[in-house]
Amino acid sequence: MQLFYCPNFQLPQTILPEEEAIHCLQVLRKNVGEVISITDGKGHFAQAKILANKPKNCLLEILEIQRQEAKPYYLHIAIAPTKNIERMEWFVEKATEIGIDEISFLQCDRSERKEIRLERLQKVALQAIKQSKQAYLPLLNPMQKFSQFLAKDFEGYSQKWIAYVGSNTLLTQTLRSKGKYLLLIGAEGDFSEKEINLAKEKGFEEISLGKTVLRTETAGIVACTIVACQNFI
Amino acid sequence: MQLFYCPNFQLPQTILPEEEAIHCLQVLRKNVGEVISITDGKGHFAQAKILANKPKNCLLEILEIQRQEAKPYYLHIAIAPTKNIERMEWFVEKATEIGIDEISFLQCDRSERKEIRLERLQKVALQAIKQSKQAYLPLLNPMQKFSQFLAKDFEGYSQKWIAYVGSNTLLTQTLRSKGKYLLLIGAEGDFSEKEINLAKEKGFEEISLGKTVLRTETAGIVACTIVACQNFI
Repeated sequence: MQLFYCPNFQLPQTILPEEEAIHCLQVLRKNVGEVISITDGKGHFAQAKILANKPKNCLLEILEIQRQEAKPYYLHIAIAPTKNIERMEWFVEKATEIGIDEISFLQCDRSERKEIRLERLQKVALQAIKQSKQAYLPLLNPMQKFSQFLAKDFEGYSQKWIAYVGSNTLLTQTLRSKGKYLLLIGAEGDFSEKEINLAKEKGFEEISLGKTVLRTETAGIVACTIVACQNFI
Repeated sequence: MQLFYCPNFQLPQTILPEEEAIHCLQVLRKNVGEVISITDGKGHFAQAKILANKPKNCLLEILEIQRQEAKPYYLHIAIAPTKNIERMEWFVEKATEIGIDEISFLQCDRSERKEIRLERLQKVALQAIKQSKQAYLPLLNPMQKFSQFLAKDFEGYSQKWIAYVGSNTLLTQTLRSKGKYLLLIGAEGDFSEKEINLAKEKGFEEISLGKTVLRTETAGIVACTIVACQNFI
């Protein structure tokens, strides 16, 4: 079953966005009268009948709306993108499959990468929810400096962590179920001491993600898995 | 610290394999008298002094051998390779970083891929242990048919699982620490009913890896993470 992305749909009718409509009508050759599955990325699926088959005006009749149960936790990872952007795309894909709500990109003292193409990464996340049949599209925030990010007010988060090589507390040991979590992950070369101290001043606990040295993107995926598993045991 | 792979080294001297020697001498421009770190991929690191700087005859003097503590478990994943081989390379890299001992490749009823270049995947694993500073190189077995693989005698394994979409038992619920584990993972399209039944007859328990639909390579990485975490809590 192919899933199409159609943000903000409402009963009784909606227009499928052009990019999705091209895929639906021209690649998959769906036609008027056929029923497709759509998601708004905000927790809803719907069955919808195609009423008009023009890519710029692919009108759908919403037949039935279903709500997907939300996860019992909220996970926000702020990560310093790797030099090789493919590794970040891979992180976004896998994190979305496993379960993540929000990703922020950090420019750190030791970052080699100073910018990202947010739109490209958002497409990867969208592909991943379509692939894994999820109705929640994670929020991806533009890149900002570490100090700027840390200056925010993190009210509402039940646990805030900074992961780095050398910390002795495993995430599995400190994680409490059903929380709202924020985790900072550095890039190649890890966080600077200054950054670690700043995070600790802001109430972030230091944690480690395992016994082996992990690449940035692997650390992110391991964190998503640990949080998902401990919340579902 | 760069780590070089030198299988079967012994006191007092050894030869660094040519491919590694080219990297050491020509790319990193190491010279006679310099000390490098090597691993045999079987649990040992060593410090070694370069005595001769010819790629075909890079003679090393072993100064000191250290043993890396082995993990408290053994994980063997038998997986049906994805159509896109890059996704399998990612799996091998990440599994090696997180912790795996043996990988077998399966040709299943619904496999689109009928062969793999084992040597290429072995290189990925080697790169990953060098990157993550590990002294254990996982064993990668050639591809074989599912029924052929299942015909083996799996003596010594404490838990054997088959993962598929639709199973209700989470791996996290059934996993017992410090075991020798074997896990079967299917490719796109999952295992056939015949395959699932055959595995169950051979004593494999059915398990699920989470609440979301995971791609083959993601399932493999999630399994490595769950096994590692539960063994280190």
